[in-house]
Amino acid sequence: MAFSDEPTRIGHLVQRYFLGQSGAQIAIESLADVVLTDGADKGDDCTVFEIQRPVTLVAGSDYVRGPKFILYEIGLLSNYDIGYYVVVANLSDIAAMGATPIGVLTVVRYPGDLTDNSFNEIMDGIHQACTDHGTLNIGGDIGNAERIILSGSALGVCRPGTVLRRSGARPGDVLCVTGPCGLLGAAVAYFPKRETNGWSLVEATETALLQSWRRPRARIAEGRLLAESGSCTACQDTSDGLKATIAQLSTASHVGFDIYAQEVPIDPAVRAVADLMQVDALTLAMSASSDFQLAFTLAPERVEACAREFRARGLSFVPIGVATEHEQGVRLLTQDGSASSLPGVEWRHQSGDISTLVMAEQTRAEGHSR
Amino acid sequence: MAFSDEPTRIGHLVQRYFLGQSGAQIAIESLADVVLTDGADKGDDCTVFEIQRPVTLVAGSDYVRGPKFILYEIGLLSNYDIGYYVVVANLSDIAAMGATPIGVLTVVRYPGDLTDNSFNEIMDGIHQACTDHGTLNIGGDIGNAERIILSGSALGVCRPGTVLRRSGARPGDVLCVTGPCGLLGAAVAYFPKRETNGWSLVEATETALLQSWRRPRARIAEGRLLAESGSCTACQDTSDGLKATIAQLSTASHVGFDIYAQEVPIDPAVRAVADLMQVDALTLAMSASSDFQLAFTLAPERVEACAREFRARGLSFVPIGVATEHEQGVRLLTQDGSASSLPGVEWRHQSGDISTLVMAEQTRAEGHSR
Repeated sequence: MAFSDEPTRIGHLVQRYFLGQSGAQIAIESLADVVLTDGADKGDDCTVFEIQRPVTLVAGSDYVRGPKFILYEIGLLSNYDIGYYVVVANLSDIAAMGATPIGVLTVVRYPGDLTDNSFNEIMDGIHQACTDHGTLNIGGDIGNAERIILSGSALGVCRPGTVLRRSGARPGDVLCVTGPCGLLGAAVAYFPKRETNGWSLVEATETALLQSWRRPRARIAEGRLLAESGSCTACQDTSDGLKATIAQLSTASHVGFDIYAQEVPIDPAVRAVADLMQVDALTLAMSASSDFQLAFTLAPERVEACAREFRARGLSFVPIGVATEHEQGVRLLTQDGSASSLPGVEWRHQSGDISTLVMAEQTRAEGHSR
Repeated sequence: MAFSDEPTRIGHLVQRYFLGQSGAQIAIESLADVVLTDGADKGDDCTVFEIQRPVTLVAGSDYVRGPKFILYEIGLLSNYDIGYYVVVANLSDIAAMGATPIGVLTVVRYPGDLTDNSFNEIMDGIHQACTDHGTLNIGGDIGNAERIILSGSALGVCRPGTVLRRSGARPGDVLCVTGPCGLLGAAVAYFPKRETNGWSLVEATETALLQSWRRPRARIAEGRLLAESGSCTACQDTSDGLKATIAQLSTASHVGFDIYAQEVPIDPAVRAVADLMQVDALTLAMSASSDFQLAFTLAPERVEACAREFRARGLSFVPIGVATEHEQGVRLLTQDGSASSLPGVEWRHQSGDISTLVMAEQTRAEGHSR
């Protein structure tokens, strides 16, 4: 087992990930709008981009929370997986703005007992996630710490005037999501309690739950399409869970939302975990979960055309509700015509154990409805 | 003592730092080249800049290493100080590229027992460091962790064709530094061992040592001047210590360096600590120390003009050596004409205790010269 010192890791181990990246051209449309002239392979104090024409630049940072990364701690995620995840978490914010990523800076800190092999696994995961999303790891920071610390910053560009924000939804706009939510939350509710609760699921379901953490996907293509379409009035990613996302869109756009209970897509694996927990599947699907779907609003007359554009590229979305006047608040409408507040536990309240919290919320909700 | 939860800290406590930042215009020359249209005050998934004309964009990340932040751990640096420091560490990389900062993203993670007051102190330090350097904290990531974790990413722009790199020095170029190095390293060598070694220094010297950590300055103005002058052939910051910096410039530019021992500026506080340690002051001044000076090379015929430009703006630098053919390596030349390798301990070897390492190095060097 090798334990290279910090300069060796910086100078030798990671160089292969960066080889030849300088010179990469990034196009928003068909031409090179941005050129990475000096990538991490050049080893300067910073990475250098030439921005060749006016663009909108977006930037954000996301830290991967250690103590909440429970599936890594219990051995279900690998070093590769968490490297992959930190990149996707950062790219998801770029996707939410409708931008094309131009690079991801990563902070990789590790304890002295992390071997070169384990270190390389993290870097492999980072590298592959960037590749899978059509972008590059442009360096950042590498070194020692008491424990593994992963953080990142992502940069993206889009054509001036096309950036997506949370704040533009108008009453009447249709609220959509790019896919089912709650999978990552369901995995965290299930695996740590599997043994103690005597829970079990078929292998395919367990795999689906784990895969949501292992190979998440940032909705870059969807975000770009929404930005270029001109149809999208507000957008954000669902990394706080769907309930929290809808609440944040409501606040930012100063609208209410009516959500149609039967339209919210629910992944079969979320349904299976909800059954074990004896909670309503919609409650779990709405709760804290770091899915990287996009939730967005479209002018109603543009929904059909936008759906066609998505289908033409092998992408999809699901309308789940409609924006209302702000005073109406966020409501869940069921098929029998009743209205209630949205079910689910927002991340605000998630202090460690999501399954207990969701089950408590369900009990509370049932108490109210009696 | 208040302990607000994460959304409250994000939603309320930090908002005052971001109020009104959207709309800020950043000029490289006299016009607004970059406009911060959506700062952290807007609360979107990312910060948004409109880049109005072709520019060179630079980006880098720096993590503040917890276990090595010994002066914080022994109570000599405050929460405010480490917030200030993380910003300067990141801005120093922007300065080294000759760029103007357009914003700093920060990651602030903290344990559950950090009070709102302590949290605000960190944020105050971050805010003030940005203000002091003419830039803005444009958000990032805030949340819980097992301990305080501070990291950042800085973005900067410069006019196309003016960016500074480590790789352009040519034999004959003059190597300069913007000021004395080794102060931060001397502080780390002194304070933790003060009691056990029975060391003491006059108050003004102790203050100078601490102030180097508390209110470091990124050489933004100097870097910009060098970039715009067209005279600078290579540049990097001295955050790894002067010896390591010279070695890195040598490698990147494929030149050697002759360093004139008597020309290297040494801060009186470094000299005082070296005396206590019974080591040569130059050895300590060259050793691992996260100073944020710039080390750079100038074409020899441009040194005078460049010095005048610096003086005209109240800035200064000191020539300390000359670039040579690569085969000659990096040499220290003393007034008696003898040549030796550079003294000092590079950060590569710094595994915890700089004073012991520097003293061992000195003993080794004396052994060699006998």
